[in-house]
Amino acid sequence: MAGSWRRTPLTAAAAALPWLLLGCVCALGYPESDLVRGLPGQPPVAFRQFAGYVDVDERAGRSLFYYLAEADGAAAASKPLTLWLNGGPGCSSVGGGAFTELGPFYPRGDGRGLRINDKSWNKVSNLLFVESPAGVGWSYSNTSSDYKTGDERTASDMHIFLLKWYEKFPEYKSRDLFLTGESYAGHYIPQLTNVLISHNKESKGFKFNIKGVAIGNPLLKLDRDIASIYEYFWSHGMISDEVGLAITNACDFEDYTFSSPHNESQSCNDAIAEANKVVGDYVNNYDVLLDVCYPSIVMQELRLRKYVTKISMGVDICMSYERFFYFNLPEVQQALHANRTRLPYKWSMCSAVLNYSDTDGNINILPLLQRIIEHNIPVWVFSGDQDSVVPLLGSRTLVRELAHDMGLGVTVPYRAWFHNDQVAGWVTEYGKLLTFATVRGAAHMVPFAQPDRALGLFRWFVDGQRLPNTTNPSTG
Amino acid sequence: MAGSWRRTPLTAAAAALPWLLLGCVCALGYPESDLVRGLPGQPPVAFRQFAGYVDVDERAGRSLFYYLAEADGAAAASKPLTLWLNGGPGCSSVGGGAFTELGPFYPRGDGRGLRINDKSWNKVSNLLFVESPAGVGWSYSNTSSDYKTGDERTASDMHIFLLKWYEKFPEYKSRDLFLTGESYAGHYIPQLTNVLISHNKESKGFKFNIKGVAIGNPLLKLDRDIASIYEYFWSHGMISDEVGLAITNACDFEDYTFSSPHNESQSCNDAIAEANKVVGDYVNNYDVLLDVCYPSIVMQELRLRKYVTKISMGVDICMSYERFFYFNLPEVQQALHANRTRLPYKWSMCSAVLNYSDTDGNINILPLLQRIIEHNIPVWVFSGDQDSVVPLLGSRTLVRELAHDMGLGVTVPYRAWFHNDQVAGWVTEYGKLLTFATVRGAAHMVPFAQPDRALGLFRWFVDGQRLPNTTNPSTG
Repeated sequence: MAGSWRRTPLTAAAAALPWLLLGCVCALGYPESDLVRGLPGQPPVAFRQFAGYVDVDERAGRSLFYYLAEADGAAAASKPLTLWLNGGPGCSSVGGGAFTELGPFYPRGDGRGLRINDKSWNKVSNLLFVESPAGVGWSYSNTSSDYKTGDERTASDMHIFLLKWYEKFPEYKSRDLFLTGESYAGHYIPQLTNVLISHNKESKGFKFNIKGVAIGNPLLKLDRDIASIYEYFWSHGMISDEVGLAITNACDFEDYTFSSPHNESQSCNDAIAEANKVVGDYVNNYDVLLDVCYPSIVMQELRLRKYVTKISMGVDICMSYERFFYFNLPEVQQALHANRTRLPYKWSMCSAVLNYSDTDGNINILPLLQRIIEHNIPVWVFSGDQDSVVPLLGSRTLVRELAHDMGLGVTVPYRAWFHNDQVAGWVTEYGKLLTFATVRGAAHMVPFAQPDRALGLFRWFVDGQRLPNTTNPSTG
Repeated sequence: MAGSWRRTPLTAAAAALPWLLLGCVCALGYPESDLVRGLPGQPPVAFRQFAGYVDVDERAGRSLFYYLAEADGAAAASKPLTLWLNGGPGCSSVGGGAFTELGPFYPRGDGRGLRINDKSWNKVSNLLFVESPAGVGWSYSNTSSDYKTGDERTASDMHIFLLKWYEKFPEYKSRDLFLTGESYAGHYIPQLTNVLISHNKESKGFKFNIKGVAIGNPLLKLDRDIASIYEYFWSHGMISDEVGLAITNACDFEDYTFSSPHNESQSCNDAIAEANKVVGDYVNNYDVLLDVCYPSIVMQELRLRKYVTKISMGVDICMSYERFFYFNLPEVQQALHANRTRLPYKWSMCSAVLNYSDTDGNINILPLLQRIIEHNIPVWVFSGDQDSVVPLLGSRTLVRELAHDMGLGVTVPYRAWFHNDQVAGWVTEYGKLLTFATVRGAAHMVPFAQPDRALGLFRWFVDGQRLPNTTNPSTG
């Protein structure tokens, strides 16, 4: 099964040469076979990329695909490592985070090449993206029953992944490690962090050098997060007073389940169905102000190889279709050392083969955040304020309740924070370790909708600093 | 006092000639002295503009300034007349509606010329903007006590204004008349409409041909509109749960007064003050997602005559400063026949000389809307959903309550409406005469922030049609 991915002739010595000339001290080495020697249609860059597989269960044939974009610019070798995971569950961190949000490239409008994302988080950190769990993107298992999985094995597989990935990249072992992600990664990242904390407690040898956790629009506690969807719809004019009131009166979200039907009364289900109908099919629930891309038209255009994109408020709303086209080009998969088992389905942003636990969505993540904070690891929860899927309303309350339960005092009262002389959102901090911040004008995918503000936020997070409270942080 | 405005030599015959050539049947004539022969730095256009004064009280020397932009394009002579009023109270309809929102021109970035607004509402209608009441913009009184005024005289002055304006422009007497405005014009327009309805009842001769009323983000009923400000702040992440709850618990907005202090308890005042502090000084409350313009920098740039503007999400956020500069150029005032009394202060967007009633803001406008509807005049209330000053939350509820009180059934259930294949907002209609619509991504000044959607909405309104409920209205 693992035959095709070694077909590309290895020219490691030749490939390594430019990096030696650039001053790379490669004493600890790197996996030559995983070096990406350039992606189709990629603009030239001065940082290295790696991509490939790490087997997390050799007997089952379960293997996770990763993409590493090293830091761009000076002092890259001393910059931290940041893991980013997308959510779903079942969605691709490579397709999401790496190539449409915070990574160094975006797909080009014709779906056949790449353009630079000059607000990539690799200005600040080395970036590691993993397709997690197996069944997502190009991650796979040769044991099909593995695709029935859930939070616990997702975390333990990622733990194994990281240990084995460090064997590939030993130079990263001592780097500061930041654990980040969005949406359902509100489950993945805290759960993984807690496994790594336990590892550190038990390990006599290597310990993970965790410096911070940041999760964007994260699912933390279903009963509050779901209720906030309808509060958001109502307060943003997307449903009427009547429907808003009907949901408030009919729904007890404490009993809500992630799976559908949602274990609610008929009157609640009816009200929710009505709300979804009113919001309609032509609004992007992940970014309620964004225009939508008409896929059939775009796919036709891509097939005709015409360079036509729809731009809305500065972002390319058709990027997801360009990405789908690009990642299914055979030459792209070859350049990424991806799809080595020739999967019987196309790459897609969110998995159709995964059979993820319906009940794990109900896990309360707050106790995990509490344990992380108790280990003196800073936790940032950030919310793009245009997201109706996991709206800021729920996250803000949950963070406040967590602080209250932990007895953490307010160290930064709720106030605006600034980026490039403008209000970039609002922020509050509890006990110097727990931060909640909104990102103004940002979507569920914060770095996609507000790349500049997102990079700003990430930079302050990695620097261990509070978000600035003046229009001119450099002098403030 | 009225000396300077006639200094420009009148060359009426020469000026009229082009319009005769364009096929204008000028049998009813027009006021030659009010014809604008071109504004400084104005791009060429194929429609006429007029500007000047109408005396509403000759004894007191009270006179209102107007600006008329005739309809652009074919069949202009058969197109309706739309009156637009800005609010405040005390803000300029010429500076606001005419030159930064829905009129045919915007100020240019250097503040010394104009550029075309290709989404001007004069594609659909002739547009009349009036500085109302006296004391606003270039409208004035020679009796300074007139500047102490309120809703009732504002409406009666506008009634006199319209009657006398029709004498200047008799050809408009028979045209369909639409009455529109925003913000505090939620008082002006319904009050004026009711005066005109009364006129029509009593008049044996001329009657106003009122075809519709449309008010954007209008102040309708203070207790509900003010409460919605804090609901908006909270639901948009601009204040914390704590401050939101403090306001909910401490404030009884039924007793709120428009004047400051607002007749609220100390705990309510404290909570409101805290909310305003948290929102901060660098957010545009009228458009919470918009960047702000730094006036000192811009004014410096204007003085240096550099062409530098700050653009945020497609609109020029510094337009208000460019406008201020432009309207204070002597050659602009001369071209507009404005400032004939050489006012002892500069033109400004909102009046510093007006002493407007503090208590009139408490007038409940809903009974006036009811009377308008009872006279079979369609009423549209529209709300830019990015406005925290008169948020959609209040307007939506008030319209629903009005419909309920009048026994009007729902004729269009709350649903998305479309413009250019995208969701342009949500809309609901009661009894075929009362419509509430949001405009997605629009500010307090709807046509400023979303010119295309605003023009779309205005077109359907003037056509007497419902907003379209399909992505492709032309075939839907």
